[in-house]
Order: sequence, then structure tokens, then C-alpha cells
Amino acid sequence: MIVVMKPGATAAQIGNVIARAEQMGCQTHPIYGDNRTVVALVGDLTNVSREVFGALDGVLHTVRIQEPYKLSSRATRPEDTVIEVAGGAVQIGGPEIIVMAGPCSVESREGIVEIAHAVKEAGAKVLRGGAFKPRTSPYDFQGHGLKGLEYLAEAREATGLPVITEVMTVETLPMVAEYTDILQIGARNMQNYGLLQAVGKINKPVMLKRGMSGTIKEWLMCAEYIVSSGNKNVMLCERGIRTYETATRNTFDLNAVPFVKQTSHLPVIADPSHGTGLRELVPAMAKASIAAGADALILEVHPDPDNAISDGRQSLTLEMFAQLMHDLRRVATAVDRFVGEAPVEIAVDELMPA
Amino acid sequence: MIVVMKPGATAAQIGNVIARAEQMGCQTHPIYGDNRTVVALVGDLTNVSREVFGALDGVLHTVRIQEPYKLSSRATRPEDTVIEVAGGAVQIGGPEIIVMAGPCSVESREGIVEIAHAVKEAGAKVLRGGAFKPRTSPYDFQGHGLKGLEYLAEAREATGLPVITEVMTVETLPMVAEYTDILQIGARNMQNYGLLQAVGKINKPVMLKRGMSGTIKEWLMCAEYIVSSGNKNVMLCERGIRTYETATRNTFDLNAVPFVKQTSHLPVIADPSHGTGLRELVPAMAKASIAAGADALILEVHPDPDNAISDGRQSLTLEMFAQLMHDLRRVATAVDRFVGEAPVEIAVDELMPA
Amino acid sequence: MIVVMKPGATAAQIGNVIARAEQMGCQTHPIYGDNRTVVALVGDLTNVSREVFGALDGVLHTVRIQEPYKLSSRATRPEDTVIEVAGGAVQIGGPEIIVMAGPCSVESREGIVEIAHAVKEAGAKVLRGGAFKPRTSPYDFQGHGLKGLEYLAEAREATGLPVITEVMTVETLPMVAEYTDILQIGARNMQNYGLLQAVGKINKPVMLKRGMSGTIKEWLMCAEYIVSSGNKNVMLCERGIRTYETATRNTFDLNAVPFVKQTSHLPVIADPSHGTGLRELVPAMAKASIAAGADALILEVHPDPDNAISDGRQSLTLEMFAQLMHDLRRVATAVDRFVGEAPVEIAVDELMPA
Amino acid sequence: MIVVMKPGATAAQIGNVIARAEQMGCQTHPIYGDNRTVVALVGDLTNVSREVFGALDGVLHTVRIQEPYKLSSRATRPEDTVIEVAGGAVQIGGPEIIVMAGPCSVESREGIVEIAHAVKEAGAKVLRGGAFKPRTSPYDFQGHGLKGLEYLAEAREATGLPVITEVMTVETLPMVAEYTDILQIGARNMQNYGLLQAVGKINKPVMLKRGMSGTIKEWLMCAEYIVSSGNKNVMLCERGIRTYETATRNTFDLNAVPFVKQTSHLPVIADPSHGTGLRELVPAMAKASIAAGADALILEVHPDPDNAISDGRQSLTLEMFAQLMHDLRRVATAVDRFVGEAPVEIAVDELMPA
Repeated sequence: MIVVMKPGATAAQIGNVIARAEQMGCQTHPIYGDNRTVVALVGDLTNVSREVFGALDGVLHTVRIQEPYKLSSRATRPEDTVIEVAGGAVQIGGPEIIVMAGPCSVESREGIVEIAHAVKEAGAKVLRGGAFKPRTSPYDFQGHGLKGLEYLAEAREATGLPVITEVMTVETLPMVAEYTDILQIGARNMQNYGLLQAVGKINKPVMLKRGMSGTIKEWLMCAEYIVSSGNKNVMLCERGIRTYETATRNTFDLNAVPFVKQTSHLPVIADPSHGTGLRELVPAMAKASIAAGADALILEVHPDPDNAISDGRQSLTLEMFAQLMHDLRRVATAVDRFVGEAPVEIAVDELMPA
Repeated sequence: MIVVMKPGATAAQIGNVIARAEQMGCQTHPIYGDNRTVVALVGDLTNVSREVFGALDGVLHTVRIQEPYKLSSRATRPEDTVIEVAGGAVQIGGPEIIVMAGPCSVESREGIVEIAHAVKEAGAKVLRGGAFKPRTSPYDFQGHGLKGLEYLAEAREATGLPVITEVMTVETLPMVAEYTDILQIGARNMQNYGLLQAVGKINKPVMLKRGMSGTIKEWLMCAEYIVSSGNKNVMLCERGIRTYETATRNTFDLNAVPFVKQTSHLPVIADPSHGTGLRELVPAMAKASIAAGADALILEVHPDPDNAISDGRQSLTLEMFAQLMHDLRRVATAVDRFVGEAPVEIAVDELMPA
Repeated sequence: MIVVMKPGATAAQIGNVIARAEQMGCQTHPIYGDNRTVVALVGDLTNVSREVFGALDGVLHTVRIQEPYKLSSRATRPEDTVIEVAGGAVQIGGPEIIVMAGPCSVESREGIVEIAHAVKEAGAKVLRGGAFKPRTSPYDFQGHGLKGLEYLAEAREATGLPVITEVMTVETLPMVAEYTDILQIGARNMQNYGLLQAVGKINKPVMLKRGMSGTIKEWLMCAEYIVSSGNKNVMLCERGIRTYETATRNTFDLNAVPFVKQTSHLPVIADPSHGTGLRELVPAMAKASIAAGADALILEVHPDPDNAISDGRQSLTLEMFAQLMHDLRRVATAVDRFVGEAPVEIAVDELMPA
Repeated sequence: MIVVMKPGATAAQIGNVIARAEQMGCQTHPIYGDNRTVVALVGDLTNVSREVFGALDGVLHTVRIQEPYKLSSRATRPEDTVIEVAGGAVQIGGPEIIVMAGPCSVESREGIVEIAHAVKEAGAKVLRGGAFKPRTSPYDFQGHGLKGLEYLAEAREATGLPVITEVMTVETLPMVAEYTDILQIGARNMQNYGLLQAVGKINKPVMLKRGMSGTIKEWLMCAEYIVSSGNKNVMLCERGIRTYETATRNTFDLNAVPFVKQTSHLPVIADPSHGTGLRELVPAMAKASIAAGADALILEVHPDPDNAISDGRQSLTLEMFAQLMHDLRRVATAVDRFVGEAPVEIAVDELMPA
């Protein structure tokens, strides 16, 4: 249930709603928007009557939420959530489309610093790179671990780019959280509820990837696990789902982008690298992601993809990435968003038929 | 096998290649491009040696085709195929992105004429409408049949818009072909090989929808059935595939758009109406389709979707369609294409942050 | 709607129900069971009131059918349908489990006669073999056509086994129907409604394969297309569906067997050859099919699978088939059915541990 | 690489092989079978030559393993692994088919003890029950936790049945391991590699459920994570996969049973309750599971399914379960296995028709 407070409701009135709800055994989550405050009541609501709350001072009205995701729902919070990364240096969910780029795995100190400089120059705002890698085989390279985190930190220092990296276990969470600006939950861990609750207790933005066979509803419920544990800074990342089609690595479900944007107030990120698995399809699908409404992109970039330790087949070269950033600016403009600082120049006359 | 002729090879030299191949029991398909002619050899090539052909006069070189789709393959024909509809009034596969629009079913004479005028005014170039409807239940409305075709013809006369409609059986093919400008093969019939071969013998553009569980490779092989029967005017329409996700009617596999564009020279059409099944997602996914590289869109539009006989949930209102056409022009410009006649105006300065 | 007549209702009373329904614009399908007669009303029932029919002489009660499949539904006909093949020589849907066996394609006259003798000796009751083959590529072997049908007929004459073969088009239906005892509709044609309606007008048993991505509900609706066209002798064949799993050719959805048996009165056939695609898995899954409740099996058998023109990977050798028939007898007994000449008698006491 | 020792190879010879491999930087896993010992070498084998090992004393030959699963592979260990539960009181993977039964969730002390008595009387050998429940929604019942474990222990004490229960996190693993006889890894955690490695360091049988979209190969690789961490007592549980079909809760991929039995030496367990999601389909699919070759079944049973806290729709009543156990005995006999105290003897003659 959502208790919507009147504009101008006082802190005391809000406190009273919370107190009554907690007496009844509910958990409460007050959400302070620009224009109004709402209090979400979750837990066992069997014995909670809307009339009681509708009658309290300062309450405008109450809403029964049908969707099982409450805190993540746009019904609870109509305004887009804008997530501040690295103290606000980067904002995800606003008019600017943020591009995160970097290698699949952090391979070496020099390598990651070099890539960081290159992607920054092309317009990326966040550096990606894996230190702990979930691998199908226990015998494959599992990432450089702590060393990888240290290299990422050096690249951040060298370039000023905030970093995003994956956390795979509750045990390594404190270590990863110390080094990264955004915590990534990978597709295989979408329903690792212990991990979701643990990142829910950390005050750091989280990017939650959709599981390979996760329905959109399940994915939003996983976001709910994090948000209801206390961390509201959750971003949802579409990275392709598993279907019968094998021509591409995954089936990139771009429908999920506008669907989630309408259903939830949380930012949506698209990952065309995993969504396609094929470097040559990434530019087209990166543009499509922006046209579909994504708030950010995460892209794999490598100076020498054929010799990358992992995911080389889907990594862009630095040249391809720079060209793509140029093209993305134009598409962003066409949907009233922007990528990077520089103004876009389009000579529309030249585009028209003679 | 592909025999690539030298630029300037004579008709006699080409004829000689064809004659030799036919002596060996192959079928031959000469393809005359702007810059060069190639002769595709299909059938049992077990006893055909490349050396024999490489040595003939006028032959530049020979290529062994690995993909099972030969005539549809970009290796056979590097240039995009541009399909002329209604005597060239509309061209699909060139720089202009063609929008086809109209109701799911032709419901009445007045209705279809009214919609035709409205979608034309908004910029559509082709009118869609179903006269024969494949329905899951034998007890559901199956379309107006011949009457529906007649209504479509009236709407064409009234507006000048060419029409596209579905043909479901070999028996009704002559009738449908008499009335329509483009023959649509529906998703359920993607592998109805008898029907594919029959439309392959007709001299009319064909739009082949991907089957609900058709792989991209199978879909291209179905195009191959049509092209190898003699009709080169085939367009491939992505309309969503069946997956475990039920939040949307289908999973719109936009990856297929750039994948097919790279693999084949045939035009690719996107159908965001069936691809999403939800009216409110259609605009975002129509924009994404263009950004991904589609050559045309096919959209369901109805003046009163809630009272449509079929597919109302995914039909745009006339107002939504007009607004969408405006937005599509901007996205098309951003990918160096265009929609409709009118130039696009973008005031880029206003889009940038202060 | 189903109008259930009283036991002993007269032909005149039944005729009266039919006449009234047809006055109201419904189609009627009387179904004469051993114990009672029901009249199924299909079509537009908007203006049909149950009260009118409930009040007619000889009517016991009326039932509103919720499922969209009416004539195929067990609510309409609680008793199992038993289908007589070849004038009753073989019965499918009764206590005997029928095994149909033979090669994927009819390859030669001698070959098919040899296989027919071998499978008959091992206990098969129907000979399978493809004369018209649906192939993904237009360049692959498409079957021997009429010649294949003639060879099948010779094998039938030599062994007395009825035959089953696939019909792919309406045009070839009269020819195929002349030669075969059971018409097979292949997976690709499950929703080829023109073909379904055409076999619905023929008086021959039909085996309808489930489409690669057909839901159980859609499949039953396709059976409904045939039955509502007039042919009640429909059998449903589970042959595996398309999923993300590629270790096996298809995912054999054995859940469909008990599900359809509960929902419909039509016989269910299992095809472990296509369901697995791997010869070495066929025996286990054939046994599982019987344990799950299938009324018949259809199995690919070839004397030299590695040199079969098609589907060799999933074909049993003659030796494997003979061994499997032995094993199937034991499993059939365990579920109170039998394979072969007559039921096996097992004293229950002997089955229990000492 | 697998180094196969000669029959009668000495401990010193085996030790020498291990020492050489470790000098080269490989991990070694000696596997002591009844007839022969093999040493599996895993890790980076780039610089390891088969010749070196082939030449050592006591070595019969060496095998290069192609499958990425080494320790789980039947190539490494041709004999079936038989897992001893509760000190050998129950053996899984031998001729006896073990039935595990109980409620989805442990709901109360009295409830679980009552069910334990009932399922034991009907022939179950292991009691199942959830204390920690993975739930899609953070607001749903999450299980009784430690209290649930204590109730399970009481039911074990009252009946002598060993218990199986799910462990969801590394943190709760020591607690769960203290109470349970078999550790269950749920479908959502199939690729929770941290958890897999943690149970790999515990000396307790583990039942690893297949993930909703796990391929058979990925699933075997997850088993490999556990086995390569040191715990060889792994059982694989097929519980249905996620596909487009919604008539049943999951698509029960019984193909996986014979496929895994051929590929791996580990026991395979089938879960028809989750595999179907519908109580009325469970008996047919339990029988089919045994016919397909499963070594054990896990079944949800509840005295009052309609009032179960979770999974009531797929739980058998106690009466249905008792009847099913009777039927399973007959099917087990038909595939040369047994359910319950001792093998049933059937004279083959009596199985044949008179």
C-alpha cells in the first residue's frame, strides 16, 4: 500500500503515518520526491485498512499496489530516479545518456590504463572492467581478483573515470565495494538473494543485470530485494536473454527497455555487447538501444579484441568505439537526449534526397 | 558455387558459363549487378570442379558458398536489393525508409478508406490490411476474404497507396495476387514450402515474415525457396519470436535486423506491432527498428483500437501514428536515411544542457 | 455449448435439438457415445441461451465449454477415442500400444520392403516412411514423391502393414490419400490451416504433429480445425519442441502426453526419434513415453543409419529396434497396457518384494 | 588429461604420476575405482605432454578429455557413482530407486513429523522439506530458517529418515550442514559459484538442481565446480526448464536423464513436482522418469495441498503418494530396478503373451 501525503505535509504528519504502520507490523519506506512524499507499506497487509490511513492528518489518499514490485514501481514514484555516481560526477537516469566502456576482464595495469584513456577521450563517462569473472568452467581464468581491483583504481586515478566492476559473493563484497563506484550484479546472480540483500545494505549504486532466463517481472522483484534492503540506487541492465536462436550469443530483448521505463522509475541500461555477442552487430544495436529509451550503455572495448582473454568476439576496437560514439550522439539528439559534452552537428539538408 | 564474371564480360561468355553448368546438371541463376555479373550454380555440385569454370573466358574467379542460402546471400550479390512496388512508385531497400500502415483486419469499406487517407496524410507509403486472417481458433473471425480484397482495392484507388495483404493458401493465391501490390507470407506459413514455391512463380514483391520459432538461418532458407523458384523480390520481416517472456506478446529480435542486412542483400522490414503486442511500446521500438537498420516498418493503426476486431491491443491510434511519423523522421536522419518527403528540422542547440 | 441428451433420447429429440440450433445460426456436431449422445454447438453463440435447450425434450443438461477446443475436449466426450486404421486391423487409442516404425525417407523399393519385413517381425503394426519430405533447404533431397508412395504400397502388400506418410500440400493430398492409411501432418504445417481443413474433409485417420513452437493449446486448436471440418479421426503426435537446449535435437515435452490425455479424448502418439535426435537416447525415451501414457510410438528405423539419406543420427538399427520392442512390452505391462499380440498377465503378488 | 593406471599399479607408481603432474603445475585428482585407478590432471595443460606420462611405470595409457567436464565425465570414471547417505543407510545410484518425499516448506513441528511417518510408510527413503526458501518476492514467506531445520531433525529422529533441505548462502551453510543429510542447491543458485565451491569443501552429499535456463553442459560444469573443490558426492536433479510453454509450470526435460547418465557417472534425480507444476500430471511423469533411467525421485507431498504455504498446486496428497509408490514399483521392475525393500522377481516367461 502507498500512502500519498499532501503537498506540504509536515515531518510530524509523516512520522505519524510511519508510527501507525509499524504498530500494525508493516515495514515502511518513506520516499521523498520533489513534489510530494509517499510512504510505502510492505509486509503482511492483511489487517491493514486503507480507511485508517486515509483519515490521518496530512494524507492525500492511499493506493493499493497491484504489482508485486512496490518500491521499484512507477506507481510509487512517478518521477525518474536519477542515480549519482562518484559523488554526482556522473548522473544516470537524467537527460544525458551515459556510456560505460572498457574490457571484459582487467588484464594488466598498463592495458587498463591505456583503455581508460582511450574510452574517455571518445566520450565514455564510466570505465568497466572485470576483476572477478564468473566462468562456466572452474578451469577457466577467473579474473585477477584484488590485483584487478587495484589496476582499476589506478586507471580511475589516471583518468578521473568512475569504475564499475562485478561482485560475485557476499564475502568479497566489502573488498569490491572499497574499490568500485558502481557494483555490478551479473546475470547468473540475478536471483542470488543473499547477495542482493547484502548490496542492499551498502550505500553504492548497483547495476543489476537481467538473468539469462529472467522474466521482466522477476528482474524487477530482484531490484525490489535490493531496494527493500535499503539501497535505492539500483539500475537495471538488459543484456540479452536465452532463446532458441543461436546465430547471436543472446537474444537482445530491447522491448524490456520501454517496458521497464513505463513500469519502474529506475534507470535502464543496455548492454549490446552481450546482447549480440558479435562485434559487427554492436553499433547498430547500441543505436537501437538509445532509440528505445535506454539511459545508459555498457560496451566492451579492447585494443586488440582477437587477443582478449575473454569476450573478444564481442569487443569493439578502439577505432570502432570512437566512430560509434560519434554516431550515438546523433541518435541521442533525435530522441531529445544527449551523449557527452560536445554539441551535435547535423547537416540535415545533405541527408535528404536530391 | 558462384562464378564471378569479369567487368565487361560479354553475353556470349556468360551464356557459355550457363551452358556448361547445365550440361553438368546444375541449375543456374545469373545475377546482373551494376558492376558485374555473377552466375550462381545450385543443385548437386558433387561433380562440378571450380577449375573448369575458372578457366572459361570472361570469368574473374569462382567462389564456393558455405552458407546454405546462396541466392539470398550477400556473398552472391554485394549490393542491396531495392524492390520496386507498384511499378516503382515505392522503393524498398533504398535510402528512404518506407512505412506501411493500416488495420490488422479490413473491417468495412468505409473504415479502410478512412484509415488509408489518414495514414497517407501522416506519411505512410503502403496500406496494410488483412482480408484472409490466420486464426488460432477455427471459430474466430477469418477475415472478409474476397470482399476484403475489394475494399482494399477501393482504398488504393481513393488514395493511390499500394497495398499489402496476406495470402494463406495456394488456391487463393491467384485471387490475392490480382488485388495486392505486395504478397505477405505470415509467420505460421514461413515453412509452408508449397506456398513459398507458388509465390516464387509470381511476379510480385513478397514480404516473408519470420516464423514464431524460426531461426534466422531457416528464415533465409525460406527466402531461398522463393528466390530459387524465380521471384527475386523478397523482403524479410522480423515480427518477434516466441520465448519464455510473457510480459510482451513476442520477443522482438532486433538483432535479426543488422544480422540479416550483413548476411543477405534482401531488404529487412520490422513489425513493432507484433514484436511487442502493446501499443504503448510500439513508438519506442519503431524508433529502435530504424536505428538498427530496418528498411521499412509495418505498423497496425486503427481509429478505435479498443473496438478493433483483432489486434486492438497493439494498434496505434491515428493520433499516435501521426506523432510517431514525426519522431521517426528525426531518427531516420540520425542514421542517414529519411522517411517521407518533408525535410527534418532539428534545433540541436536546444537539446544541449545549459 | 454442449447439449447432453438423456440416456435413451430418441433420434427425433436429437434432431429437434439440431434443428433449433441451426435456426439460431450455429453449426452442430452430434457425437454418439456408447452411453449418451451430446450435441456440440459451435460458431457465434452470443444469442444462444442455455435455457432454451435445457427445456427441450430429451435433454439432460447443457454445458458451457470454456476451453476454445470443443470437439476435441474431454468435456465433450469423456470416453477415449479409438481410431481404426485400415478397416480396423489396427486400433489406436485402446489398451494396445501401437508401434509405427520405418525409415525417415523411402529410399528404394528393395529397402522399404526389407525394413517393413524386419519391423513387422519385431512387432511394429504400422510402417512409416516419407515420400514427400519437408526440407529446410530447397537444394536438399525432397523425397521420391509418387515413386515413394508406390514403394510404400508394395511394402504394405508384401507385409500387410498399414502405412503412414506425410502430406505437405493440398494439391498432393488426393494422391497421398490414395496410397496411405494414415495421413501425417508435419510439425512445420501444424498451423497450415488450408491443409488442416482439407484433411478434415477426407475420411482417413490423421496424425497431427506438434509444431516446433506450438503451445499445447494451439495444437489442440489445430486438431479442432480438422475435427470441425468433419474428420474425427485425429491423433496428436508429440515430437519435441524448440528450446534453448542444443545437446539434443529437440526438447521432448513428455508433459504434453498426460496433459493432452486429460484435456482431450484424442489418442496421443510420441515420437522419441525427433524428440531426442540421438539414437542412443531413443530407447530410454520410448520407454518413458509409454510410462507417461502415450497410446502409440512412431520410431525411425534403418538397417544402415550412417548411410541413411536423412535423419540417420536418430534412426535405430534393426537390432536396436528388436531389443527395444522386447523392453517396451515390459514397460507397457507395468502400466496396464500391452505391445504386440495380446495382453501380458502378471500376478500382482509376484511384483511385490518377498 | 586422464592417466589410466594398469590393473595392479602400486601406490608408489600412482604417487609418482601425481608428483610429476604437480611439478608441471597441474592439479591432480586420483580416482580409485574397483578395477583400476585413474589420475585426472586439470588446470593449464599447455605444456604437459602425454608421452611423458605414457612412459611412466604402471601407466596403461593416457586419454585427452574433450569435454570440459573432466571429473564428472564417464570417460574419467566408467562405473556409476553410488552415493552413501547417512552413513550408508541409503544409497543413491545403485539398483534401488530412491524416493525422497515431503512438503515444499517445513510448516510446523507436528506437520513435518506427521508427513515423515506417512511417506516412510508408503516407501520413501528420504524426507524433503524447505527451511530456507528462495522466493521471487522479498515480501513472501522465506521459510522458518533454523526452526525449520530443528523440526526436520525431530522428524528424522522420529522416523529414522535422512533429510534433504536447501542451502541458499555460504553464511548459512555450516548451520544447514549440521542438520541435513543431503545439501540441496536450488535452480536459482546453479551458477552461484561461490556457493558451489563452499559445498565442495564439505563432506556431505549434494543434490544440484538444474537452473531454469541451464544447458546440460553448463549444469555438468557446475557439478565440476563442486567435485573439483573436493566433494565427489554430487547428484544432478532435473526439475524442468523454462520454455515458451505455459500450460505446465516448467518443461520437464526428461531427455536430460539418459543424456547425463551416458555422459557422466554421477546419479541423476528427477523432480516431477517442479517439472510439471500440476499434481495430476505428477504420477505419469514420475513413472516416465523411472522408465527414462532416473536413479531417484524427489516429490512434493502434503496432507492438505490446498492449504500448503507454497507449491500446493503441485503437491500430491498422502493418498495419491501411496498409490503412486505402488505403481512405481511395477515400472521399476520393468526396467530392472526396484523401489522399496528388495528387488521384485519376475519370471520373464510370464511377461510374454500366451
